[in-house]
Amino acid sequence: MENRTEIASLGEFGLIDHLTRNIELQNASTIVGVGDDAAVIDHYGRQTVISTDMLVEGVHFDLIYTPLKHLGYKSIIANISDIYAMNATPTQVVISLAISNRFSLEAMDEFYEGVFAACKRYGVDLVGGDTTSSQKGFIISITAIGEVAPDMFVKRSTAKKGDLICVSGDLGGAYLGLLFLEREKKIYLENPQIQPDLEGEDYVIGRMLKPEARKDIIEFLEKEEIMPTAMMDISDGLSSEILHICKQSNLGCVLYEEKIPIAEDTRGAAYKFEIDPTACALSGGEDYELVFTISQSEHEKLVLNEQISVVGYMTEPEEGSYIITKGGSRHVITAQGWNHMN
Amino acid sequence: MENRTEIASLGEFGLIDHLTRNIELQNASTIVGVGDDAAVIDHYGRQTVISTDMLVEGVHFDLIYTPLKHLGYKSIIANISDIYAMNATPTQVVISLAISNRFSLEAMDEFYEGVFAACKRYGVDLVGGDTTSSQKGFIISITAIGEVAPDMFVKRSTAKKGDLICVSGDLGGAYLGLLFLEREKKIYLENPQIQPDLEGEDYVIGRMLKPEARKDIIEFLEKEEIMPTAMMDISDGLSSEILHICKQSNLGCVLYEEKIPIAEDTRGAAYKFEIDPTACALSGGEDYELVFTISQSEHEKLVLNEQISVVGYMTEPEEGSYIITKGGSRHVITAQGWNHMN
Repeated sequence: MENRTEIASLGEFGLIDHLTRNIELQNASTIVGVGDDAAVIDHYGRQTVISTDMLVEGVHFDLIYTPLKHLGYKSIIANISDIYAMNATPTQVVISLAISNRFSLEAMDEFYEGVFAACKRYGVDLVGGDTTSSQKGFIISITAIGEVAPDMFVKRSTAKKGDLICVSGDLGGAYLGLLFLEREKKIYLENPQIQPDLEGEDYVIGRMLKPEARKDIIEFLEKEEIMPTAMMDISDGLSSEILHICKQSNLGCVLYEEKIPIAEDTRGAAYKFEIDPTACALSGGEDYELVFTISQSEHEKLVLNEQISVVGYMTEPEEGSYIITKGGSRHVITAQGWNHMN
Repeated sequence: MENRTEIASLGEFGLIDHLTRNIELQNASTIVGVGDDAAVIDHYGRQTVISTDMLVEGVHFDLIYTPLKHLGYKSIIANISDIYAMNATPTQVVISLAISNRFSLEAMDEFYEGVFAACKRYGVDLVGGDTTSSQKGFIISITAIGEVAPDMFVKRSTAKKGDLICVSGDLGGAYLGLLFLEREKKIYLENPQIQPDLEGEDYVIGRMLKPEARKDIIEFLEKEEIMPTAMMDISDGLSSEILHICKQSNLGCVLYEEKIPIAEDTRGAAYKFEIDPTACALSGGEDYELVFTISQSEHEKLVLNEQISVVGYMTEPEEGSYIITKGGSRHVITAQGWNHMN
């Protein structure tokens, strides 16, 4: 970076003014935005949905290979993905940051560039926040607010026996992107002269660094009048999420390995690391796809959307939670996946 | 503490289940609480108010003299105070925590005891959150949600020339409580054998460690049908807050030193530190009182409430922002107060 402006030179209020100077509100529901004790939202007879998430440097992200702009973008995506997972539409976000003095104003601008890019793409208004100093590292806390028509939200606890389990997009890519980035980081730390070699791995690295939220799936479900019986976003891997749905709905499930959607690029990347692509899909985090259950009677509507795969069905709780492998054997699904990661 | 349970022994979901196991929802507007991708709120034709705040160990609080239960209580107060400052009623909160492994499950229980005590007292539901590990220290991010009848919220930017400036309760106490706690910490660090001497300073220490939010003032204003023209909570000192109202309303102001409410205990404490009590009221933070402006025609209604003091009035912007001292001289109000803190 060419310029470095110390954040202390602006003061807290100057920093907030600077970062929020170009906000243009996109939602009629945003009555009062940034700049007061609180924001005011009017969802006009709709219900308000709210979700919060905290990201800590060194725990959730590594700035060695994460550009700040991408981090800002992904921070918003991770939160609004939870709103979509309720079958709702995100409308507002508030962001709190704790930053150490190693970050300059230019660094914050980069982060906010990503934040605003995600807000613009998903039609979300940034309506408040707090910026403070940290003793160490960069900590991001985002709360996303959305709206839904009364009682049209979808919980995790309402799946029914026999319902089909559906997954959007493809899984496991973000985890493999992370493996490549971690490998290149290790090489770089041992020898800073070596240029990172990530050629040909754009897909999985993009899945890690610049994920998207599945707004399109929620829009498709609404258009086709498909009401999922349960839904979650996949941030910790399919195994962990389907077990939440099973536990909260008091059901079991069967998944079919061959039905789990995995991109060719993800499969190729897994083979380079000599790990099982299915294990990455089941246990790798941060794909931000949706897993949802629907009544069997809705099945034919799904053929209209190649972004949705049926991967199994819900069973009685006594039957437990299983995956049937391509070879035909049954494995119990655990929160770490049916096969531990290498 | 007698027992120490490592948080890692529960895992993330076990920890959330444990901390939220006793939640009883208090608001009909809370449709879905903790345990899904997001919470769902229905404010039935009222507007939703939202505010967020981040508290960092070593920056905003010091665990040497802050019991975790008090910290939990105060974290909620600091946020819902912003909701009251919009003339709204807080109804829900979400909490995200980042904690290092130096904190045990018992420590988290203590913190949450304070959180739940504040939630109960103010009728607020805890509806979500996120708990993660930190590399260093304890970081708290809280988002508070409230409700207000359509267009009854009160901003900072709508004060009018000639309006009276009112302050609730008394000011400067929390800052003096902090000075005592910092003094005893210093003595303790030099010689851990010496017992802290805080006798007789209960009032100011209570103001620092266990503040309350002015729900009663908002209720009084509603009952007496007083609509403030502008309002803020006093978290950074009266000077800083009144300057926000002046700037955002494009006005000036005059304050009278003799009118600023300062408790006798606060005054006595200030004299022990040989500092000016008025400077503490103007520049000391964390009192969580309210400052608001009202039309002069509403003045007589205020006599019903001895918790409200009229401290000055709003003027044309060209007249600037002044305080008239007891001695009759005029000083420009600055964000640091008219007299720098010692």
